[in-house]
Amino acid sequence: MTSTGTDPLLEVLRGGLTVYDLGRPLYIGMPQSPNHPAFWHTLPRRHGDRVRPDGGSAANDMLVMGTHVGTHIDALAHVSHDGRLFGGADAEQACQDGRYPEHGVHTIEPMVRRGVLLDVPRALGEEHCAAGYEITPADLDRTVRAQGTPVGAGDVALIRSGWGRLFDDPDRTRYIGHDSGVPGVGEAGARWLADRGVHAAGADTIAFECLPAGQGHGVLPAHRVLLVESGIYIIETLALEEVAAAGVHEFAFVLSPLPLLGATGSPVRPLAVVGRA
Amino acid sequence: MTSTGTDPLLEVLRGGLTVYDLGRPLYIGMPQSPNHPAFWHTLPRRHGDRVRPDGGSAANDMLVMGTHVGTHIDALAHVSHDGRLFGGADAEQACQDGRYPEHGVHTIEPMVRRGVLLDVPRALGEEHCAAGYEITPADLDRTVRAQGTPVGAGDVALIRSGWGRLFDDPDRTRYIGHDSGVPGVGEAGARWLADRGVHAAGADTIAFECLPAGQGHGVLPAHRVLLVESGIYIIETLALEEVAAAGVHEFAFVLSPLPLLGATGSPVRPLAVVGRA
Amino acid sequence: MTSTGTDPLLEVLRGGLTVYDLGRPLYIGMPQSPNHPAFWHTLPRRHGDRVRPDGGSAANDMLVMGTHVGTHIDALAHVSHDGRLFGGADAEQACQDGRYPEHGVHTIEPMVRRGVLLDVPRALGEEHCAAGYEITPADLDRTVRAQGTPVGAGDVALIRSGWGRLFDDPDRTRYIGHDSGVPGVGEAGARWLADRGVHAAGADTIAFECLPAGQGHGVLPAHRVLLVESGIYIIETLALEEVAAAGVHEFAFVLSPLPLLGATGSPVRPLAVVGRA
Amino acid sequence: MTSTGTDPLLEVLRGGLTVYDLGRPLYIGMPQSPNHPAFWHTLPRRHGDRVRPDGGSAANDMLVMGTHVGTHIDALAHVSHDGRLFGGADAEQACQDGRYPEHGVHTIEPMVRRGVLLDVPRALGEEHCAAGYEITPADLDRTVRAQGTPVGAGDVALIRSGWGRLFDDPDRTRYIGHDSGVPGVGEAGARWLADRGVHAAGADTIAFECLPAGQGHGVLPAHRVLLVESGIYIIETLALEEVAAAGVHEFAFVLSPLPLLGATGSPVRPLAVVGRA
Repeated sequence: MTSTGTDPLLEVLRGGLTVYDLGRPLYIGMPQSPNHPAFWHTLPRRHGDRVRPDGGSAANDMLVMGTHVGTHIDALAHVSHDGRLFGGADAEQACQDGRYPEHGVHTIEPMVRRGVLLDVPRALGEEHCAAGYEITPADLDRTVRAQGTPVGAGDVALIRSGWGRLFDDPDRTRYIGHDSGVPGVGEAGARWLADRGVHAAGADTIAFECLPAGQGHGVLPAHRVLLVESGIYIIETLALEEVAAAGVHEFAFVLSPLPLLGATGSPVRPLAVVGRA
Repeated sequence: MTSTGTDPLLEVLRGGLTVYDLGRPLYIGMPQSPNHPAFWHTLPRRHGDRVRPDGGSAANDMLVMGTHVGTHIDALAHVSHDGRLFGGADAEQACQDGRYPEHGVHTIEPMVRRGVLLDVPRALGEEHCAAGYEITPADLDRTVRAQGTPVGAGDVALIRSGWGRLFDDPDRTRYIGHDSGVPGVGEAGARWLADRGVHAAGADTIAFECLPAGQGHGVLPAHRVLLVESGIYIIETLALEEVAAAGVHEFAFVLSPLPLLGATGSPVRPLAVVGRA
Repeated sequence: MTSTGTDPLLEVLRGGLTVYDLGRPLYIGMPQSPNHPAFWHTLPRRHGDRVRPDGGSAANDMLVMGTHVGTHIDALAHVSHDGRLFGGADAEQACQDGRYPEHGVHTIEPMVRRGVLLDVPRALGEEHCAAGYEITPADLDRTVRAQGTPVGAGDVALIRSGWGRLFDDPDRTRYIGHDSGVPGVGEAGARWLADRGVHAAGADTIAFECLPAGQGHGVLPAHRVLLVESGIYIIETLALEEVAAAGVHEFAFVLSPLPLLGATGSPVRPLAVVGRA
Repeated sequence: MTSTGTDPLLEVLRGGLTVYDLGRPLYIGMPQSPNHPAFWHTLPRRHGDRVRPDGGSAANDMLVMGTHVGTHIDALAHVSHDGRLFGGADAEQACQDGRYPEHGVHTIEPMVRRGVLLDVPRALGEEHCAAGYEITPADLDRTVRAQGTPVGAGDVALIRSGWGRLFDDPDRTRYIGHDSGVPGVGEAGARWLADRGVHAAGADTIAFECLPAGQGHGVLPAHRVLLVESGIYIIETLALEEVAAAGVHEFAFVLSPLPLLGATGSPVRPLAVVGRA
């Protein structure tokens, strides 16, 4: 190892890290909301299509996608309520020439912050939360106590419901859960998070919050509380099974959204990083 | 601060970090190679288009882009030579049903590694390298010595040429530099990097390597040496001006490519992170 | 009317025409095969986004779509059998730099030809063919006789099954018909068409030919017979209800595919035109 | 020939037709306005990618494009003036859930109408109009007289400037003509067309109307007169050289826009058809 510096971070790096990948693979046909442009990937050029005189050849890609597909972060510009964005700006006026300059995803600073995994079903003594189950403030309190990991101002709180096990289900509709409902926090759980001053909140589901069976995305009170009332970013479709299985509940959370000028969200591949004690 | 753990990484986090953003903003009209599908962003839905009965409204996005636009990483599947990918696989056969299962960008593990900025023009006593200038092994040696930052196995080496200052030039063709040429390492500089066993190498230019004036991307020997012969990833269009201006030459380098199944590259927003000593 | 020429076509035009629109509207969420990139439409710029000093403003669009969505035509390059395209060309070699120069959709000449609607259920005394019903040569013969409209060399034959009534069904899966099957000709019906030397053949279904219940697009013998063995274009997802209801079985058929260089198909809006006798 | 009917149109068809293709091929890199999403075409699936058990294989496409690229038609929803669309509707309010229900391109009926080619340079005794030349009402009158083809109510008038010869110029910027200017009618010529009650007007240039050198699309008075004040559709980037070379000035004009629900335009491949006298 060649580092000569005295940066304590580099020292920790030298000691070795474990990096948990919290992002889902992006592929054609993966579960996603029909409200957003479908993920599609194709190769305009493959190897052999054009070979340079020296024998070199390059293959390349074309992507088409919404920004709220796969593992992604919601910018504050994503949701408004009664015509207002977070901070009170008029939501219609906030759109300038086809983008949101003020609360667009480019305004989200890359995050290197304390992250806490709230493994709710584990604290409740279950494998996973039931479909449509609303995770309550009492559940969150119990989880924090069971784990010994309080959630504080500036932290990123990731709520595991166990629903993520359905992401790769051959029946693509199961993870979306329109008919069954999807577990998650409701308005009260969102307030619990806001009261603690978290910087961002995430979950292993497609819409972050509790969806009652058969009701789709008709009303999203947790989005309102977090994005519109509190200025707290939401991270969706997280892969939390591996970090949960490892029993890791506290870590350095790293998330670096694409700086898409004026967009309402970005696909991301967040990381949970721990050093060796 | 609420952390109760004994993880040394969380301790460093508590002490405070500085995070340098090495990604360029993505916007319509930014400089990009005409070889790749143009970046385009549009809002299918804006606030006010559909307001739910409770007053909620969501805006969303559609992205179209190549994966080698903006700040991005090249997967090993991107380049072949004489019909072979890194490791010897037949490049045409490697494409399975329209994607590259073996060396696709989804196979790049997220990076949290020692990073070294090689501020070449500073070491050479210049503002920036001249257009078309080939950065030599001697220049790299001199930079390492001047900075006191050797480059070692597993590190990520970022080579600053100073060309990044042109990214926002109103003349979009300047950064691309077809007529002028672009500075960067050539085949010899690439071997210098491969000899040190770097994990990835990056630059503040659109094609990483030296482009002689007027010759475009006809021959890319550094890509061949790194991607095909050495299995070393390449990161392009980095924003290195800020970290260079701060005089920071060694850091924790964080890069988390989108896990695009079978793609040849991914847009990224890498970070250089330093703790407080 | 200002025409002064002696062109008999212009004379007919002066006498008045009836134009039947055989194209389906293209909209987000319409029934389409999941094998093809989903149709998406969005407005990058709306009125008011940028107003010129003189008060002018322009709105514009972005389209993303496969070419085999909505009403569309299959080029000969679309299908191969045992590695060969129509005429015997090697199907893999036929792809040059990411497109099909030889049998691509740009090689389809615009059509202004005699068209014949074969209203099969009407001739059979039914409202519509049953799901999964294979239309036989005997059915086609009977239809031709009942209508008094023989099908000859160079004609375009449009086969109505009645399935088109499901295109706008709120259950988007009905028209696709994976579980139910879809009516249409099979291999024998395709040979009937090929034996008559038609220039193109169309239907009011998503895959032109008979799909048995539950089997999807696993085997498509009519595509093989027409596209690969006979060089006959296929037109799918036609809107035939209006022209059938009018009892019009013979007309000038007009189809002008987009000249997409090297593509395998094109969205189209074909017309059936009749003059006043 | 198998037709048995007495439709005079079918009789003309039997006599033989000549079809002139007025559409430009669509390919990556063709000249287009940077205001609109770039045309891109790629093959997600090629022959050989997936071969069915019976030996069948299908290749398919993905298209990304604006609707105002290549040969295309402008819907009335494309342009507003002082906040109003044709007929007086509020242009901002006219956008409903991301599309234009009222004046969208889906409201343009397919056209089978008398078309007149106004070959202006030929009437003026020139090869082609000079860059930036404004075609005047006097020029149009002179052309009509020289050709003996008056323009009347309901006709489609196609104005040849000769600029179309530059579409395939290796220098892609020439056809766009930002620096040079582009010939075409101005406000007065547009009024001449509107006074005659044409149904649609087209030209062989990218913006239909005269663009003075160096001024781009800053002010487009002919668009205002035709689209906003008169409800007359505009067709751009037409290929008029072949029909002009044949000396054909009057024909059946056929244009069938894609019924893109709520879009502001559509790519088209119009035809000029003549019978044999």
